Amino acid sequence: MINDRFSWVKEPVAALDNAARQRAEQRQGQLTKPAGSLGRLEELALRLAAMLGRDKPRLGKAGIAVFAGDHGVVEEKISAFPREVTVEMVRNFANGGAAISVLARNLGAELEVVNLGTVADPGPLPGVVAVNLGPGTANFIHGPAMTEEQLAGALEAGYASVERMLDRGVGLYIGGEMGIGNTTSAAALACAYLFEKPEVLAGPGTGLDAAGVRRKVEVLERALTFHCPAGKELPPREILWRLGGFEIAALAGAYIRCAQRGLPVLIDGFISSVAALAALRLQSRAAGWFIFSHASAEPGHRRVLAAMEARPLLDLGMRLGEGSGAAVALPLLQLACALHSEMATFEEALVSKQFN
Amino acid sequence: MINDRFSWVKEPVAALDNAARQRAEQRQGQLTKPAGSLGRLEELALRLAAMLGRDKPRLGKAGIAVFAGDHGVVEEKISAFPREVTVEMVRNFANGGAAISVLARNLGAELEVVNLGTVADPGPLPGVVAVNLGPGTANFIHGPAMTEEQLAGALEAGYASVERMLDRGVGLYIGGEMGIGNTTSAAALACAYLFEKPEVLAGPGTGLDAAGVRRKVEVLERALTFHCPAGKELPPREILWRLGGFEIAALAGAYIRCAQRGLPVLIDGFISSVAALAALRLQSRAAGWFIFSHASAEPGHRRVLAAMEARPLLDLGMRLGEGSGAAVALPLLQLACALHSEMATFEEALVSKQFN
Repeated sequence: MINDRFSWVKEPVAALDNAARQRAEQRQGQLTKPAGSLGRLEELALRLAAMLGRDKPRLGKAGIAVFAGDHGVVEEKISAFPREVTVEMVRNFANGGAAISVLARNLGAELEVVNLGTVADPGPLPGVVAVNLGPGTANFIHGPAMTEEQLAGALEAGYASVERMLDRGVGLYIGGEMGIGNTTSAAALACAYLFEKPEVLAGPGTGLDAAGVRRKVEVLERALTFHCPAGKELPPREILWRLGGFEIAALAGAYIRCAQRGLPVLIDGFISSVAALAALRLQSRAAGWFIFSHASAEPGHRRVLAAMEARPLLDLGMRLGEGSGAAVALPLLQLACALHSEMATFEEALVSKQFN
Repeated sequence: MINDRFSWVKEPVAALDNAARQRAEQRQGQLTKPAGSLGRLEELALRLAAMLGRDKPRLGKAGIAVFAGDHGVVEEKISAFPREVTVEMVRNFANGGAAISVLARNLGAELEVVNLGTVADPGPLPGVVAVNLGPGTANFIHGPAMTEEQLAGALEAGYASVERMLDRGVGLYIGGEMGIGNTTSAAALACAYLFEKPEVLAGPGTGLDAAGVRRKVEVLERALTFHCPAGKELPPREILWRLGGFEIAALAGAYIRCAQRGLPVLIDGFISSVAALAALRLQSRAAGWFIFSHASAEPGHRRVLAAMEARPLLDLGMRLGEGSGAAVALPLLQLACALHSEMATFEEALVSKQFN
């Protein structure tokens, strides 16, 4: 019964168009520039050509969905900010004052906020989709963070967000998150997926001091001892409901749905990358649709990126979440497409080629 | 007499507005995000606040000037492309087909091309300012690249470009360059300014193979032995006319004029950074107006950046020139300003602050 609600996750992902990529590669070799001189923008254009099925890729507008949820583990004092901030920030998103609101506006992107469950219910807010899975997750140091039903609901909320964005005509998807305590949940998930020690994945998050990080490591050790006793390998889905956050699971669901619908995904920082890791454990073929935007200042991010052999585009020391790092990287993708699609070829411009 | 033509270079640079920077810093601490979580975008916003004299900085449109010139040293076979490409690319700029043409169009930037002297005269072209200093520089392995008069003219061409861009209402200046052979000239200049060995600063440029790079190193060794015999320290201006290119000198002049007029400068890759180094040797106070955009794939760039204690924003393996790396970084500056100026404060958004 409950398994039926997860069956969509295993549906095949959309195929990349390798013929379009090959045509794009041929075109790239004829553009009026030294071969390879646009660096990583060249590979980016080729990947987008394969995703969009066009040798001259065009991105169209981006869609940004910010998923919010509260975390029971905040009881363990693992955050520099009080739990109320999650719902206060949902209001700030709705009012256009948060970083991601400013970025979406300046980038001409569609923005939606999906509230999956906060301790206090903010009531109806413009631009906010309410998916009430509960008043945040349970504290995972002495039990699962959520039920399987709640996990199914969170994944479905991601699915629904992608479908809404496709209806709004977006050509690229950015997922963001807001949830006080969610670097702790993300670190727990990464430890469980990667068989890694908490000290590698726990970091200051929004601003813990050294003593706070030590406390976070201890909380993670207790949680992992409880959920993943030595030698026991949990199924990927079980890891997600035991240690996840609603918003992290929703991001994973959205990423999988994007790959199924053939919508390129630009992935944000630490928490979003852990959601991508969870998505790949549920549907490994989705990876071809993921573009990693930036390396977060959160120290565990590099370990998570390495596990996916991901090489992000930017390294600006950002660690805000909300999808902000991905949004800041968006113009790089747009300009990579424009260069690839609009530059003249040697023949068109009557420019001499390189000596051989 | 000739010294009179250089006297403007020593005029003082515009002062940075430290009061505006302080107000901006205060504002930054109140924005609804964890302190420091926007990483390098935060310092960027503060620097722009000081440059623009506003605690909520706004960039306005950018102006991109591409300086072109030919190089006598190309006789020594130090380039992967034939010399004709310089003037062919000037035509490509005019026709809108080059990388920088595409970027300028997509970024809504003003673009001008300044042709300082190519082997073949392309005749009048739309959007191209012709400043005919000669049919390229002389081959600097057996004599100076240019006369002092030609250097004065090149610096003045940079000055004039900045004045034109200010007349067109730009709020930020990007300089680019095109000149087959100009990584060799730039490497020679950097060796002379930094007392560095050619093998540290010579690289593949537009695409030399290993044998080509070795030849380039030998050419640089001969040139430096001729112009800078051991123990002889040349004045900065003399280094520039002995080893420079017209377009590199024009960039240096433009950068100095930007600092004098209080126009922020976004500096491109290897050649542009050598021009910035030359500018700082002529007018050391200009540095406060320089923002370094990207780390080029050209290996010598890191040495030049280190000499100026510059830490560029992007590292995408680009090595095209034309101002393209700076143009690609421009949205980061625009978004840094937007975030800083448009985000809500904790008080405005009724969001709780961090625990202390």
